[in-house]
Amino acid sequence: MFKNFKMFRRYYNSSAKSIANVLKNKESGDFISVQGWVKSMRKMKENVFFDVSDGCSEKRLQILLNNSLKPTDLTPGSSIIAKGKLSLSPKGDLELNAEEVKVLGECIVSEGYPFAPKKQYNADYIRQYLHLRSRTNKFSSVLRIRDAATFAVHEHLHEQGYINVHTPILTSNDCEGAGEVFTVFPDNKETLKQMSKPNQSKEEAYFNSKVFLSVSGQLHLEALSHGISKVYTFGPTFRAENSRSRLHLSEFYMLETETAFMSDIKQLTDHIENMVVEMTKKILNKYPEDLKKAQDIEVDLSWVNKKFPILTYEEAVDIAKQRDVSFNSEEGFTKEDEMFIVKHCGNIPTFIIDWPKEKKPFYMKECTHDSTKVDALDLLAPNVGEVVGGSLRENSYEKLKENLPSENLEWYLDLRKFGSVPTGGCGLGFERYLQMILGISSIKDVIPFPRWPHNCNL
Amino acid sequence: MFKNFKMFRRYYNSSAKSIANVLKNKESGDFISVQGWVKSMRKMKENVFFDVSDGCSEKRLQILLNNSLKPTDLTPGSSIIAKGKLSLSPKGDLELNAEEVKVLGECIVSEGYPFAPKKQYNADYIRQYLHLRSRTNKFSSVLRIRDAATFAVHEHLHEQGYINVHTPILTSNDCEGAGEVFTVFPDNKETLKQMSKPNQSKEEAYFNSKVFLSVSGQLHLEALSHGISKVYTFGPTFRAENSRSRLHLSEFYMLETETAFMSDIKQLTDHIENMVVEMTKKILNKYPEDLKKAQDIEVDLSWVNKKFPILTYEEAVDIAKQRDVSFNSEEGFTKEDEMFIVKHCGNIPTFIIDWPKEKKPFYMKECTHDSTKVDALDLLAPNVGEVVGGSLRENSYEKLKENLPSENLEWYLDLRKFGSVPTGGCGLGFERYLQMILGISSIKDVIPFPRWPHNCNL
Repeated sequence: MFKNFKMFRRYYNSSAKSIANVLKNKESGDFISVQGWVKSMRKMKENVFFDVSDGCSEKRLQILLNNSLKPTDLTPGSSIIAKGKLSLSPKGDLELNAEEVKVLGECIVSEGYPFAPKKQYNADYIRQYLHLRSRTNKFSSVLRIRDAATFAVHEHLHEQGYINVHTPILTSNDCEGAGEVFTVFPDNKETLKQMSKPNQSKEEAYFNSKVFLSVSGQLHLEALSHGISKVYTFGPTFRAENSRSRLHLSEFYMLETETAFMSDIKQLTDHIENMVVEMTKKILNKYPEDLKKAQDIEVDLSWVNKKFPILTYEEAVDIAKQRDVSFNSEEGFTKEDEMFIVKHCGNIPTFIIDWPKEKKPFYMKECTHDSTKVDALDLLAPNVGEVVGGSLRENSYEKLKENLPSENLEWYLDLRKFGSVPTGGCGLGFERYLQMILGISSIKDVIPFPRWPHNCNL
Repeated sequence: MFKNFKMFRRYYNSSAKSIANVLKNKESGDFISVQGWVKSMRKMKENVFFDVSDGCSEKRLQILLNNSLKPTDLTPGSSIIAKGKLSLSPKGDLELNAEEVKVLGECIVSEGYPFAPKKQYNADYIRQYLHLRSRTNKFSSVLRIRDAATFAVHEHLHEQGYINVHTPILTSNDCEGAGEVFTVFPDNKETLKQMSKPNQSKEEAYFNSKVFLSVSGQLHLEALSHGISKVYTFGPTFRAENSRSRLHLSEFYMLETETAFMSDIKQLTDHIENMVVEMTKKILNKYPEDLKKAQDIEVDLSWVNKKFPILTYEEAVDIAKQRDVSFNSEEGFTKEDEMFIVKHCGNIPTFIIDWPKEKKPFYMKECTHDSTKVDALDLLAPNVGEVVGGSLRENSYEKLKENLPSENLEWYLDLRKFGSVPTGGCGLGFERYLQMILGISSIKDVIPFPRWPHNCNL
């Protein structure tokens, strides 16, 4: 009785500890209990050795169990609770001498589990099993790096005094052809019938107007930036394009910032460079091992210590012509051009500024030194090409009014009518950023549940 | 020339400083330059006094300007740059003796600016001008508290070892009637034509199946929690209901967590209580002034130092009957019942556990002590009633299979077939949480761009 109580006591205090915590804070001789999934197993004469992960870090704990105590359903992929005493392995690592291992859920390949132990699968195969993908070593590292990057965004922008606002997903602005859009309406026919007015299409019944999924939070962010001078939004945006490239999704994440009292494109390039570098440094410093495990190829991130080159559009065109003399500026840079330009600049993310006005949307600000140009920028990066787009915004009421593409945007004009300020903003494609630091070819492999044409599983 | 250079130098170093920064780090005698919007003005014999805010904090800087230097278009709401020397006001506060004030954008009520100086407007009036709402004092405080709460979520859950994952907005699960859903399809008829196959409705053409906006990330979160044992998602969710209550929106934010190896409802109530209390403490400690300014009424938050009561469903019914003897358990608790129960428990957020099985969805776990009950919980809070819902999830493959509402969910069953673990999770209605700590009556006034039936402005 007393002995049982002591047994209970010695496990009790550690029952909730994560594996990372055990490896960091416990020492040889401590009694602990851990929970997780079996990663790999090696059977020896007397003992079975296996690694356990709880998925909250890349850390694993090796467990050593006498063959006589091994449950029959202990296989890679199964979930377990193990209790025992920590000791040092011959290599000097902490390992658990298990007194008891309990299998919570078995995992049997012959019953349909798609990942056999010791086998390597390619990303296309693993992606067929989205609901099980977080159990694979590689993808769980990707998920943790995605989390690290997300937190780094919030941390960095708060350090810089920015306020996180939530721009809407549903919008009645059709975004002026910034991309093809999805329309939204209630699925329930009864609701539609109740709510519709005479002469309304069913797409208009619920909201009194057609409503779309946002392709960008920029215009809403600009509105908020006229009261709170530094704002950002970070969330999903949508494109209904029929594109299946390795760089496009129908649902993807964008980080957008808008800064009031910004009147020089140089302030915007500094802001973006600082953001991309600091996010990446935070990940490099805090999660170097997970970063390596998540990478598809070895990625050179030495650009975090270099200055990003800035090219004018004209300079970039000249470089593109070195690749292809028939470069057609009408059609703009191809993905190959973008890659070539970045390579030409030493594989450092590279800004292109001073864009011809006709290539960019109505809200971008005319350059003071050249009225045929706008203060727009693209940031091109290794592996992905364009990763950030941005501009100073036209803050002259008169000029904006002249070019306003829709009456629907009277409210946007109001921003320049009352307490107007120069602002500048940008949008970073979050998945492309992850592809860029992870060297992952397909955008579908850096987001938990990718959606693209003809694919919306789960 | 030299003098000009010195003038330039003395402003240059402080040109990017926020007002909060000036008030914290500068002192009387320093030359500074600030940017912002004029909040209030008082004209005196010799000078005009006005407060300036940059919106990034609730802090304002008082500026004193000789009437002879006052630009004619300096009015409340206008945007300005001011330069000068800091000094101490008679009250001992830092104020700016301006040498120069430049109006960047005028703001004239007679030209249509809807907020006249010194006038108080009610929330319904202000809400008509969503694009200008961030300029009002009250709503800018609400936006900053929303930001503070958002950051507190990320900070707290990372401190607890949770990984932030992004569950999808677009889903082919119709969420088993968890609420009425929105359907999504491309707006462009050409795209639809290109992509549709014979016998497909236009709703199915793009993704090969009907696709909906997510009403909850729970099922996807559960999938991920079987590889990463502590996960959360925080983002917009959607309901296509025809409801115009003060507590419902068509687009609202939910914080959802899922924790593997959680097998006792007490672990879940502890997790939720800890989360709600720690989020609130972070806001109270870091932003006490903004919190007060954002509040509609004085809100008693002393519950952050109290234990949240836990009632069983039966106990809660008994309390509801004290309010209304004809309480009908078939219909469940009304909002009035919920408020009464919270009041009865001392206006402390109150858990209700042990729910009758037939009142809750298929995935909730049967109580071990009573097979007619499930291990579900609601957290009721002052001002809003239900603010969190949650449960342990049924992890028995057999029991779940019996109750699975749709073949579409075979993948969900797979989670219990391979490496199954007990899990528990919850969803916190983020806007309701804000209403609860701010005492704000309408949910439309705690989100930047509210969407509800017949309303999707901007």
